Amino acid sequence: MITVALAKGALLKDSVQRFQAAGLDFSVLLDPGNRQLMVPSPCGRARALLVRNADVPVYVAYGQAQLGVVGFDVLLEHQLPVSPLVDLGFGGCRMAVAVKTSSGYRKAADLPAHCRVASKFTRCAERFFSQLDLPVELIHLTGSVELGPITGMSEAIVDLVATGRTLRDNGLVAIEDLFESTARLIGHPLALRLDQGPLQEVIDSIAAATESATERAGSAVPAVGAAAS
Amino acid sequence: MITVALAKGALLKDSVQRFQAAGLDFSVLLDPGNRQLMVPSPCGRARALLVRNADVPVYVAYGQAQLGVVGFDVLLEHQLPVSPLVDLGFGGCRMAVAVKTSSGYRKAADLPAHCRVASKFTRCAERFFSQLDLPVELIHLTGSVELGPITGMSEAIVDLVATGRTLRDNGLVAIEDLFESTARLIGHPLALRLDQGPLQEVIDSIAAATESATERAGSAVPAVGAAAS
Repeated sequence: MITVALAKGALLKDSVQRFQAAGLDFSVLLDPGNRQLMVPSPCGRARALLVRNADVPVYVAYGQAQLGVVGFDVLLEHQLPVSPLVDLGFGGCRMAVAVKTSSGYRKAADLPAHCRVASKFTRCAERFFSQLDLPVELIHLTGSVELGPITGMSEAIVDLVATGRTLRDNGLVAIEDLFESTARLIGHPLALRLDQGPLQEVIDSIAAATESATERAGSAVPAVGAAAS
Repeated sequence: MITVALAKGALLKDSVQRFQAAGLDFSVLLDPGNRQLMVPSPCGRARALLVRNADVPVYVAYGQAQLGVVGFDVLLEHQLPVSPLVDLGFGGCRMAVAVKTSSGYRKAADLPAHCRVASKFTRCAERFFSQLDLPVELIHLTGSVELGPITGMSEAIVDLVATGRTLRDNGLVAIEDLFESTARLIGHPLALRLDQGPLQEVIDSIAAATESATERAGSAVPAVGAAAS
């Protein structure tokens, strides 16, 4: 029995579609009335765990799920021992430094030393500012990070930006990107090593489905082998 | 201008009611169509920030909000420098150790040494098991903690229990309480010290409203002075 950890929220619909291409049907998770956190696929070969984004790599790292789908941003933030397998291409966004539009800062290095930066991704932010050699005070928030500059608690934020609408609505502007993020298929390293075929079959089907989805979209996103390192 | 940090979710309705007793009307936050994160009270004396539970003590600790309402559980977990002011009595629940009903464990000390315990409140759990002199491996999850024992990832969980329905629905049972939690009014220590009267006036009105609400409920919950320490 293969167990798959899927993230609630924005990535779920596309994740379910990719597993459908591998013959595993978890579409019951898309039913708004569904309250189950663990659902079997009708074929009986697999089951899915529906968990929070940040918990996907935890279940995979502990081997409770052999496969999982999670954003590259979460992988970088939590640095758990999981194997990156396929760049799924969907869920595209970027991690960016943003400031008040009225602030006059045009790049991250313009920020004053020891200023405050609010983020849900304080480890990613810490690495970025340390590579920039700019000491900042990081404030960890769990949501609505854009309130940091609005209330005056922080000079800048580091957050995920998809369309940029939330930033604009709050009078903020992205001034520098840390990295681009897409959804990734990840695996439990030991389960992959001990696999007699069934896991690799699922991974190959998802990689093939991703390649054809990427071709249809006419985009140049690499489908396989873009390691989360 | 007084700024108040209020938590989204279960505590919001009662929080808004208590501030109404102090003449500050933030009822627009209860409108399901509201998308604003910062709303002024019609009287012009105050504004409310609508933030995640765990972020309330952050805004108060940094002085971006002079007052806030948050669960005692969050205060204990994050240990930020804020002043506990009034035990508001609502939002009652308890932090408990829970295990599979079928496990046979009847108290926390029955758990095997070095077993895994999943929790959103790993710092509270760490203190509890260290006082118990029982070494455990803590796994930090951000949601659906009950999946820990169900999937076999952890032997036990430490989580908030209100009615106990979620536990029962998942075949789990609470075997020991860490502490009881209710919503607390907290303040920024320096703002309280520099206050010329208006802050204390709000605090006194909320304490009085809490006392009469507690009397109406016929309960013996202490209204003032139950410090979050």
